[in-house]
Amino acid sequence: MSSNPSAFTLASKADLPAFGIGSAELASRGTGCTFVAAPQGAVCGVDVRGAAPATRETDLLRPTNTVEKVHGVMISGGSAFGLEAACGAMDELAARGIGFHLMDACVPIIPGACLFDLPVGQFAYPRKEQGAEACVNALANLESGEDPQQGNIGAGTGATVAKMLGPNCAVKAGLGWHAVALGPVVVGALVAVNAAGCVYDPAGNLLAGMRMADGSMLDAQGALPLMMQAAAQGTGAASVAEAAAAQAAGPCVNTTLGVVLTNARLTKAQANRLATATHDAYARSIKPVHTSNDGDCIFAMASGDVAAQPDLVAMMACEAMQQAIANAVTFATSAYGIPSVS
Amino acid sequence: MSSNPSAFTLASKADLPAFGIGSAELASRGTGCTFVAAPQGAVCGVDVRGAAPATRETDLLRPTNTVEKVHGVMISGGSAFGLEAACGAMDELAARGIGFHLMDACVPIIPGACLFDLPVGQFAYPRKEQGAEACVNALANLESGEDPQQGNIGAGTGATVAKMLGPNCAVKAGLGWHAVALGPVVVGALVAVNAAGCVYDPAGNLLAGMRMADGSMLDAQGALPLMMQAAAQGTGAASVAEAAAAQAAGPCVNTTLGVVLTNARLTKAQANRLATATHDAYARSIKPVHTSNDGDCIFAMASGDVAAQPDLVAMMACEAMQQAIANAVTFATSAYGIPSVS
Repeated sequence: MSSNPSAFTLASKADLPAFGIGSAELASRGTGCTFVAAPQGAVCGVDVRGAAPATRETDLLRPTNTVEKVHGVMISGGSAFGLEAACGAMDELAARGIGFHLMDACVPIIPGACLFDLPVGQFAYPRKEQGAEACVNALANLESGEDPQQGNIGAGTGATVAKMLGPNCAVKAGLGWHAVALGPVVVGALVAVNAAGCVYDPAGNLLAGMRMADGSMLDAQGALPLMMQAAAQGTGAASVAEAAAAQAAGPCVNTTLGVVLTNARLTKAQANRLATATHDAYARSIKPVHTSNDGDCIFAMASGDVAAQPDLVAMMACEAMQQAIANAVTFATSAYGIPSVS
Repeated sequence: MSSNPSAFTLASKADLPAFGIGSAELASRGTGCTFVAAPQGAVCGVDVRGAAPATRETDLLRPTNTVEKVHGVMISGGSAFGLEAACGAMDELAARGIGFHLMDACVPIIPGACLFDLPVGQFAYPRKEQGAEACVNALANLESGEDPQQGNIGAGTGATVAKMLGPNCAVKAGLGWHAVALGPVVVGALVAVNAAGCVYDPAGNLLAGMRMADGSMLDAQGALPLMMQAAAQGTGAASVAEAAAAQAAGPCVNTTLGVVLTNARLTKAQANRLATATHDAYARSIKPVHTSNDGDCIFAMASGDVAAQPDLVAMMACEAMQQAIANAVTFATSAYGIPSVS
């Protein structure tokens, strides 16, 4: 493999003290959730670019809408059921007085999104209890400053990739993290990679492709003839697109969920733009991505501590996200009958 | 009051057999939720036009996204905390095999939105238990076909209007319902009215304005001098807009939540368009509306039983929604120290 030279220096979670990251799992049941806490509030944006999303509190993130800051972002397994996890985090933050205060009420603002891992474990989903646990762990992480664990943890517990030829070809993936700095500007990327597509490292080398019976790994290009054959035989469908859709149609069958964290000072519109720009990292590292069966989503959170040029922050976010996606695959371990690449 | 002649005939919930409507309350605590069930699936769209929304599963409703049908819509009190109610309905529907079936999983698709009623009762919110109860009641309503109860019920339990001069001037509102038909085409409107603004009947007569100490009711125009005065005295703010914002800034402080139900055959794009068009009923019946402190939202659900011209369906929806908004005020009863107009 060739290496990818970086113009940025390596950074760590400790360089982003405004944010805490915590996870919780139902490990034996193949699902979990990961929470990013921002007790002081973070300017936030989102770009939901997969066609099968499961989301909450994304409408308020539009630049024209009133609320300027969120108090956390929850990413979770469990398909749309997993939206419950954020409810547990809401209660935990409200109990500590963290939230939007108005008329004697305290309302924590927690956008979130889910990925589809139901068949990996036992059709379980992270509930309020796991959401609360992830929140408590995230608040503790504010103190410890430790980098988040990677692999089969939190929202990545039941995550898999390379499923274009069906679940039998899947490779185990998980949660990934990477952070970079340029002078005082720090950008971290957290991601739970659960794509239909194959995963490439930042240099463009195939990390996780579809596992074939002979032990080889096929990338998406290599799998096309087989997909066309399956289409012709299995469903009578004439096109590759229909064959792929026949593999797994529905809400949130796959889905890669990312959160960009930065200490940069961004407006809400710029945070939304940052989320949009970081989807380019998905495009470079996952092929195909943003399919009709992915609910791919990226949140961007900015704590506003240092001035920064927004396009530079986006380049940093893309580099951090590409390495985080690679880490999500290389740190994952075989589980639930699905082999990892490491 | 003058009457508003209608080109349409009166219809009832029984004329929309694909949908069931059910509510549940924490009545002593001033909050609740209302669920519209569509067990066979309904094509659905949404338009979130208030600037302070609390929503879930709205991204999947974009016409370009994969999921074509939803299995219910939940509207609830409790501000963003109330998003939990839909989780209870998800479990109930899934237990009955109602949902999107894929890879041995059953995932009910339930978009939803919340209104802000926290200070009305005891800072309570509808939980999974109330969401489940509303869902069970909605499924029972599929059999009974009864029109939904109106007033202080479900999502309207803690609803109030006319709050531009602060909560002391508020008037109690609640849940409203009205349905109309034109030949075989039926359109119903369900709404929980919790606006900052004043409410007018379909003929344009003031139904609920700000209550003054002398017993009179002021509409928004009449209140402007007082708002400017408050701005100058209270906050030093120079503009009416700032004075209004000072009254109640934050997420979902008010919010009117509507659901349009029709047996018309609409595409997903047309259902989204129907939601957009029905906001005109809000514009005509609530003044002001769509403010920076309203999370105003309308869902449109179509069961696809009869052919219909989409613009005609929208006109029917606007008429039904205007009457439903009026009903939400006239059926409400005094509660939580807030007087009703009836």
